[in-house]
Amino acid sequence: MVFRLNELAELVGAQLHGDASAEVSKVSTLQDADQGSISFLTNSKYRKYLKATSATAVILGEENLQDCPVNALVCDNPHLAYAQISAYMQPKPEPLTGRHETAWVADGAVVDVTAWIGPNVVIEDDATIGPNVHIGPGCVVEAGVTIGADSKLMANVTLCHDITLGERVLIHPGAVIGSDGFGLANDDGVWVKVPQLGSVLIGNDVEIGANTTIDRGALRDTVIANGVKLDNLIQIAHNVEIGENTAIAACTGIAGSTRIGKNSTIGGGVVVVGHLEFADSVHISADTLVTRSLKEPGYYSGNLPAAPNKEWRKTIAHIRRLDEMMHRLKELEKKLASQTDNDIDDA
Amino acid sequence: MVFRLNELAELVGAQLHGDASAEVSKVSTLQDADQGSISFLTNSKYRKYLKATSATAVILGEENLQDCPVNALVCDNPHLAYAQISAYMQPKPEPLTGRHETAWVADGAVVDVTAWIGPNVVIEDDATIGPNVHIGPGCVVEAGVTIGADSKLMANVTLCHDITLGERVLIHPGAVIGSDGFGLANDDGVWVKVPQLGSVLIGNDVEIGANTTIDRGALRDTVIANGVKLDNLIQIAHNVEIGENTAIAACTGIAGSTRIGKNSTIGGGVVVVGHLEFADSVHISADTLVTRSLKEPGYYSGNLPAAPNKEWRKTIAHIRRLDEMMHRLKELEKKLASQTDNDIDDA
Amino acid sequence: MVFRLNELAELVGAQLHGDASAEVSKVSTLQDADQGSISFLTNSKYRKYLKATSATAVILGEENLQDCPVNALVCDNPHLAYAQISAYMQPKPEPLTGRHETAWVADGAVVDVTAWIGPNVVIEDDATIGPNVHIGPGCVVEAGVTIGADSKLMANVTLCHDITLGERVLIHPGAVIGSDGFGLANDDGVWVKVPQLGSVLIGNDVEIGANTTIDRGALRDTVIANGVKLDNLIQIAHNVEIGENTAIAACTGIAGSTRIGKNSTIGGGVVVVGHLEFADSVHISADTLVTRSLKEPGYYSGNLPAAPNKEWRKTIAHIRRLDEMMHRLKELEKKLASQTDNDIDDA
Repeated sequence: MVFRLNELAELVGAQLHGDASAEVSKVSTLQDADQGSISFLTNSKYRKYLKATSATAVILGEENLQDCPVNALVCDNPHLAYAQISAYMQPKPEPLTGRHETAWVADGAVVDVTAWIGPNVVIEDDATIGPNVHIGPGCVVEAGVTIGADSKLMANVTLCHDITLGERVLIHPGAVIGSDGFGLANDDGVWVKVPQLGSVLIGNDVEIGANTTIDRGALRDTVIANGVKLDNLIQIAHNVEIGENTAIAACTGIAGSTRIGKNSTIGGGVVVVGHLEFADSVHISADTLVTRSLKEPGYYSGNLPAAPNKEWRKTIAHIRRLDEMMHRLKELEKKLASQTDNDIDDA
Repeated sequence: MVFRLNELAELVGAQLHGDASAEVSKVSTLQDADQGSISFLTNSKYRKYLKATSATAVILGEENLQDCPVNALVCDNPHLAYAQISAYMQPKPEPLTGRHETAWVADGAVVDVTAWIGPNVVIEDDATIGPNVHIGPGCVVEAGVTIGADSKLMANVTLCHDITLGERVLIHPGAVIGSDGFGLANDDGVWVKVPQLGSVLIGNDVEIGANTTIDRGALRDTVIANGVKLDNLIQIAHNVEIGENTAIAACTGIAGSTRIGKNSTIGGGVVVVGHLEFADSVHISADTLVTRSLKEPGYYSGNLPAAPNKEWRKTIAHIRRLDEMMHRLKELEKKLASQTDNDIDDA
Repeated sequence: MVFRLNELAELVGAQLHGDASAEVSKVSTLQDADQGSISFLTNSKYRKYLKATSATAVILGEENLQDCPVNALVCDNPHLAYAQISAYMQPKPEPLTGRHETAWVADGAVVDVTAWIGPNVVIEDDATIGPNVHIGPGCVVEAGVTIGADSKLMANVTLCHDITLGERVLIHPGAVIGSDGFGLANDDGVWVKVPQLGSVLIGNDVEIGANTTIDRGALRDTVIANGVKLDNLIQIAHNVEIGENTAIAACTGIAGSTRIGKNSTIGGGVVVVGHLEFADSVHISADTLVTRSLKEPGYYSGNLPAAPNKEWRKTIAHIRRLDEMMHRLKELEKKLASQTDNDIDDA
C-alpha cells in the first residue's frame, strides 16, 4: 500500500517540508531507506546518517531540518510520529474468530463469539474470554481467569487461576501470570509454604514481555495498573503494585510488596528489594540495586560501569584499602595539628 | 468455613488472649481485615496498622501484645503460625485422577492410577509417574523421567529426559528442568559442544519457581537437595549442588559446579561464579556478585545501593580518582615525614 | 560400547602414554572414574584428584603427565579432546521422522519428509521445515518461519512469525525467538507501541539456552551470527547483532541495537545498555554493567565481589564519605603548602 506524505503529515500533525504528493510504502532506517521509504531521526546517535539518506521523507525535529536532504515531516515528538505512522502503514490482518480444532475449552468457560482460541490452547472452567480476544497456540488459561476485550496472548502463555486481565492487554510468549508468590515461613530450619491466596489484577493497555513472570499476591492482589509496559524476563513478586504508565526494561526483578509509582521508568537488570514505596516519576538506571524507598521523583543510579580489567583490579584494591586510607588521612591530620600546636607552643 | 480461635490456637500452640470462642473464616492483612478475619503481624514495617485493625484476631509475638486492640494468638514464630493457620483454613479441592482426553501418554510410560495427567500433556516412554502426582496443562515429561508421590507440575513445565523428582515437589509454570548445561570447548575459535551426560536429582519437598531453569550435569548430576526452595527466573547451571533447606530468591544465577551449602539464603539478582564451595548457613544479600568460595557461615554483601543521579556521578568520579588520591596521600606523608626529619636535623 | 585407547587417541590427535589396547566404555570425572572409564584434567582446580584416580586413562596436557598414575592421552587442548571423545562414545539414537498423531501442521506449511514433528507441536502456514529437523513436544512454529537442515527444537520452544534459523541450530526448552521488541514512544505520559516489523536471523550452529528470549527487530533484523552460543535466561533485545562464535553466559541482557563482535565471551548476569558497538574479541566478566562502546579487544570488568557484611558496610560508608575524604585531603595539602611557604618566609 502506498501513502502520500500530506496524508501522513496530517495524521500526526507534522509540518511538511517538500513535496506533499510524494508517496511512500514502507518505513526504513536512515541507512537502509530507498525511494518509497519514510524514515525518522529520533536518536542523536544516528544523526550522522541523515545527510546521506535515500529516503523519500524523514520524520524529525525542527533542530535537524536544516541537515535533511529530502522531504521532511517536522514535529515536536518524532518518535511518537514514527510510531503512529508506522502503525498506520501496516496492513491489518483479518482477525480470526472461533476455535481451532485442537483447542480444548471446558464446558464451564464463557468465550465471546468474536474471540479466537488457537491451536492446542487449554481454557479451563469458569474462564471468561471477552470480545475480540486472541489466544495464540499452546496458551493455558486456568480456571476462573477473566480476559478483557481486545486482549491478545501470543503463544505458550500461562495465566494461572482466577487472575484478571483488562482490555487491550498484550502478552508475549512464555509469560507466566499468577504463579504462587515466594512465601515461606521457617520452622526450625525447614521452610513451610505460606498459602498464596491473592490474585493478579492487570489493567488496560498493559504489555508483558516474553518469559516474564508475575506472581499472585499472598492475601492482597498483585496489581499492574493501566498502561504499564514490561519487557522480557522480568520478575514481579507477590503483592507488588506498579503504577500507571510505568515502563520496566528486561531482566529486572521487583521483590514482594514493593509499590512502584506512576510514570516511572526502570532500566534493565535492576533489583528492587521488598516492602519499599516509590514516588511517582522515579527513573532508575540499568543494573541498579534499590534497597530503600525512593520518596522523591527523580533519577537514581548505583552501579559502576565496566573498565579494562587491569584498571578495574586497581580500583577494587583501592576500595578495599579505603579504611586504611581514612586512617592514614586522620594520622596526617593529627600530626599536622600537633605540629601547629607545637608551633603555637613555640610562639 | 468457620473456625474457632481456640481451635486455631491449639493447632499452632499459641497462647490465646481474648474470646476463645470467637470465629473467623478468612485470613487478611491488618489493613484489610474486618469482622471474621484473622490477621498477623510478622514484619515490623506493618506494626503501624495494628492499633486500628478491625480483625477478629491477630497472630503476633509477645512483644506486640500490648498494642493489640483485639483477640490475640501469641506465639514465638507468628510467621510460621500464620502459614499453618492459613493453610489449615483453605478448602482442600478433591484431587483429580486419571487422564485428560487431550493428554498423550506413551505406551511405555508407567503412570500410577491415582495420578492426574492434564490437558495437552505429553508423557514420553519410560517415564514413571508416582501416586497422587498432578501434571498440569501443557507440561512435557520426556523419556525416562521419574516423578515421586504427591508432586505437582503446574502448567507448561518441561522435564527433560531421565531426570528424577522426589516426593511433594512443586514446580511452577514454564520451569525447565534438565536442559543441557552450557558446556563448550574451544577449537581455534569455534565452539564444540561438550555432551551433557549427567542428570538432575531433585529431592523431596522442593519448590521451583516460574520460568526457572536447572541444567543437567555434564557427567555428574546437578543436585537439588530436600527442602530447597527456588523462586522464579533462577538459573542453576550444570553440576551445581544445593544443600538442604536452602532458599534462593528470583533472578539469581549459580554457575557450573558450584556447591551451595544447607540452610542458606541467597537474595534476588545474585550472581555466583562457577567451581566455588560454600559453607552451610551462608546468607547473601540481593544483587551480590560472588567470585570466591565462602568457607565461613555468615552474611555477605557486595553491591552499592541506588543514590540520586547527581550524587552517584560524584561518587563514581571519586572512585575513578582513588589512585590519584592515594598518590596525593603518600605525597603528603612523605612531605610531613621529611619535615619531621628536618625538625630532628634542626634539633 | 567399548573403545580402545589408540582409537580415541587417533581421533583427537593425542599422544598415547601407556597401554594402547586398553579399553574404555564411559567418560567420568577423575573422582568418580573406575576401570573402564576415560577421564580428563581440564581445570587446574581438579588437579588434586589426578594422583588418586582409578580411571583407565586420562586426557590431559603435557604439563600434567608426570602426575598421571594411569594411561594418558596427551594433547594441547584436553578440553576439546574430551568433548570430541565424549561425543564419539555416545550411542547415536535412530532419528525420528514423520509427524506425531497429536501434532497440528497447517496445510500451507512445507515440511521435509525427513523431519520429525513431535507431540502437540503447532506448525503454522508458510513455515518451511528443512531436512532432518527435529521439533520436540509442545513447540510452536508460527507462520512464515524457516528452519534449516539438522536443526533441533527441544520442547515448548516458541518461534514467532517469519523468523529464520540456519542449519544445525539447537534450541532448548522454553526459549522464545522473535517476540516483539520493547519499542515505545511516549505520548504525554502514555506509551504508544512502535510496530516491530523486523525479524530475527539465526545463523548456522547456533545454540540457544532454556527460556532465553530474542526479540525481533523494529525495522532491521536482530542477527545472531554463525556459531554463537547463548546460555539460559538471556535477553537479546531488538536489532542487536552478535558476531560469529561469541558465547554468552546465563542471565545476561543485551539492550536494543547494540552490536557485539565476533569471538567474544560475556559472563553471566551482565547488563549491556543499548546502541553500543563492541570490537571483536571482547571479554566481559560476570555481573558487569557496560554503558559505553568497547572499541578495543580485551578483558573488561566492573563489579565489586562479595565481602562479609560487616566489612561491606564499612566499605559502603567509606565510599559515601569519599567526597569528604577528598576535601580533607585538599585541606591538608593547603595547610602543608602554607606551612612550607611560612618556612620559606621564615628563611
